[in-house]
Amino acid sequence: MKAQQNRSDLKCFFEPDSVAVFGSLREVFGLGYGMVRNLLQFGYAGKIYPVSPYHSEVMGRKAYSSVEEIADPIDAAIVITPPPTVPPIVEQCARKGVKAVVIVSENFAEAGGDGVKYQQQLVEIVRRTGIRIIGPNTIGLFNAANGFVTNPYLIAQKKIRNGGISYCSQTGYVAVAAQPLEDRALPLSKLCDLGNKCDVDEADLLSYLADDSETRVVAMHMEDVKDGRRFMDAAQKLVSSKPLLILRPGRSEDGARAVASHTASLAGNEQVYDSAIKQVGAIRIDTWQEYWEVPKIFAYQKLPSGNRVGILTLTGGAGVVAVDAAVSAGLTISRFSPLTVDKLRGIYPRLSRNPVDLGPILSVSDNPFAVQGEVITAVLDDANVDCAVISVYAGFDDIVAPIVEMFDHLKERFTKPVSIWIYGMKLSAIDEMSRQLEERGLPTYFYIETAVKALGVAAAYSKIKAGHA
Amino acid sequence: MKAQQNRSDLKCFFEPDSVAVFGSLREVFGLGYGMVRNLLQFGYAGKIYPVSPYHSEVMGRKAYSSVEEIADPIDAAIVITPPPTVPPIVEQCARKGVKAVVIVSENFAEAGGDGVKYQQQLVEIVRRTGIRIIGPNTIGLFNAANGFVTNPYLIAQKKIRNGGISYCSQTGYVAVAAQPLEDRALPLSKLCDLGNKCDVDEADLLSYLADDSETRVVAMHMEDVKDGRRFMDAAQKLVSSKPLLILRPGRSEDGARAVASHTASLAGNEQVYDSAIKQVGAIRIDTWQEYWEVPKIFAYQKLPSGNRVGILTLTGGAGVVAVDAAVSAGLTISRFSPLTVDKLRGIYPRLSRNPVDLGPILSVSDNPFAVQGEVITAVLDDANVDCAVISVYAGFDDIVAPIVEMFDHLKERFTKPVSIWIYGMKLSAIDEMSRQLEERGLPTYFYIETAVKALGVAAAYSKIKAGHA
Repeated sequence: MKAQQNRSDLKCFFEPDSVAVFGSLREVFGLGYGMVRNLLQFGYAGKIYPVSPYHSEVMGRKAYSSVEEIADPIDAAIVITPPPTVPPIVEQCARKGVKAVVIVSENFAEAGGDGVKYQQQLVEIVRRTGIRIIGPNTIGLFNAANGFVTNPYLIAQKKIRNGGISYCSQTGYVAVAAQPLEDRALPLSKLCDLGNKCDVDEADLLSYLADDSETRVVAMHMEDVKDGRRFMDAAQKLVSSKPLLILRPGRSEDGARAVASHTASLAGNEQVYDSAIKQVGAIRIDTWQEYWEVPKIFAYQKLPSGNRVGILTLTGGAGVVAVDAAVSAGLTISRFSPLTVDKLRGIYPRLSRNPVDLGPILSVSDNPFAVQGEVITAVLDDANVDCAVISVYAGFDDIVAPIVEMFDHLKERFTKPVSIWIYGMKLSAIDEMSRQLEERGLPTYFYIETAVKALGVAAAYSKIKAGHA
Repeated sequence: MKAQQNRSDLKCFFEPDSVAVFGSLREVFGLGYGMVRNLLQFGYAGKIYPVSPYHSEVMGRKAYSSVEEIADPIDAAIVITPPPTVPPIVEQCARKGVKAVVIVSENFAEAGGDGVKYQQQLVEIVRRTGIRIIGPNTIGLFNAANGFVTNPYLIAQKKIRNGGISYCSQTGYVAVAAQPLEDRALPLSKLCDLGNKCDVDEADLLSYLADDSETRVVAMHMEDVKDGRRFMDAAQKLVSSKPLLILRPGRSEDGARAVASHTASLAGNEQVYDSAIKQVGAIRIDTWQEYWEVPKIFAYQKLPSGNRVGILTLTGGAGVVAVDAAVSAGLTISRFSPLTVDKLRGIYPRLSRNPVDLGPILSVSDNPFAVQGEVITAVLDDANVDCAVISVYAGFDDIVAPIVEMFDHLKERFTKPVSIWIYGMKLSAIDEMSRQLEERGLPTYFYIETAVKALGVAAAYSKIKAGHA
């Protein structure tokens, strides 16, 4: 059983030195053509071997009529051809010594009929030859470190920022083309849509990501789990060194039915999943928004040593919302020490309490940025504070530079994790401030609830990790 | 008791023919100056009378040393001066016959100490003279129809779109400068922050908005209620003709404490509030995001006649998330009629089920926009479908025009309410597509959960309204 050896070593999927591309090489519209174009666009430096019986070249590169024609060794293959052609292609790849195949094509088990048969053939080839498969019915993967990408469609992003967040999912919504990753400067390590999981499953991927030194946090979209025991082992191992955040759709009865028709998998009993997630020390998140925005707190910041939060806002109303969100996220509203209360009172008499509403002082101050900086420092220096949410107002374009400058001065003093809520009236200012702060390792959010939730998840993981130690 | 007459007629606050402005007229930095600048910026066409003993003119306009000096009648006054000066100003305004005063100044009851005394003096003046006050401790109000605005700070928006959404709140976060209203083309009618509610309260404002023909939906941020019975009467009356959506922070014990220090009010018992909200037929929403994004479905669209939703996505994963969100929002996943199933199968064999995943067909179609249009039409024509969420992919800038064109062709066929989820990889494309579709009366959302929630809230109100009829 070759396939059982090093099951979790997915290195050839994410870091292949060479890749064969199977798919139509028709200019612009061919999906094999698209794959080659995308690999080049993201600067993938490995060797690319387009394979097609109908073309002899693509984008100035030689195309091969079959994989056997290629003399050099090949690590990986990516395939987008009609289902009946896929098993023979994988068979040829196995013979050639290819170790990893990503099958992007659809209409396998999830479509019923002959698709089920073709998928069974794939499983059989894996068992017999030891070749590994991601998919079918997947958008595949992306590695921000080396530009390896399996997406065949147009990608209007040039350079995705390389960082510590990896995604493990069961949907093409988690693909390099589904989010404004570049515009938001999201620090990405690896994305992977597992598709129908005819071979590689979440346990394999989590094991690989647990060992991957570039991954600092894993966000997982989990519709179902193929093998509960293996998943739990892999998840537990991962959680001992990095956080695992899980979004689990398909909880409702109708949702479970929708899962079945999506990837031909059974969503299973909600309580069983819930208790497994708790047992391994993973943390549930609730929405797509949290899925994309919460992980970055781990990508940049150290863990809080406790769950006591300081809340700094510019309106009293937002403070109240933040308190509710903090309580739901398992945070405690910090009671400031007498020293901090004195410091804050010295700045402005009404600033002594948590949440701190800076609105009144900032609106009358001659140097609001200095005052805001003093207050942030006083709160973060308090021994009763483990982390803080900081509100900044991106009212107009000219405010971006002084706010960023304020954080540049403060940043060295940030010995505790913070999350930043940005709001304002110009999208241009909000987006630019977010980009500049993210580049400085400060996680930014567009709703205060998400900013608070991120700290709550960080505190929860901090506690879980302490339990592991 | 003059103050009890026409308590809910707030016309002079939102539609004054003339306004006196009390506050520093120092160029650029003075807050009275800021108020005058903002009134001019938004094209307020009424007469503006700046009042200050220290200046004789502002922005080329005559300034008056006191309100008595002004010969003409004055409807409203806006005040941002230190607390001790405010009661005498309001007293003078009352003598002059001013009917409505917005007190933006802070440091009244919410600050304790002398602030409590000054606020009591205001209450006494209201009782004695019948003048009405919004505030103190408020950013005041904005009317998108006539440009009347009381905000003294810089507003980097030029033209706010005039539409059917009105906001009733207790925080400056709900102000004309707190959200990208212009960039998002939000169809706004009136915004009002009630502040400390020394006089005008939520019952007054809801009564006014109930009668206001421009307001189609009211979103309310409710930390506390001043008079439960009056609130319930006003809310019930409003709900009989338009929806009332309530965001109620301060639910947690810590949150309630934060409310107390924010506007010196008591958050009160959560169960009492919850049952009152249900009893009047208002609908609770849960986050700031929903507060800003859900109401627009009422601003543009007719009510659904039932709660059966059709879900159209471009990835199976998003369909599952949408189903969960629909179930939580009280929607039922529509079972398509045999006729629709046939139509959909005719387009593509695997399109027969709800949610409809268009991904597979669009990725192979030569004319994806035509196909998407056909599918949308088939689903909306189904007698088992009351409303639909439609996903559109703003992958890159060039896709905006054909998608908008598709909706232009379809729009006449939209006899049922829809909400649109936009996602993609370029903020520029997402923002532009949103703006263009909103201009066409199509409510757009950036997370599928919010798009679904909006339909759920619409269906809930539809049911409530049927109960009233």
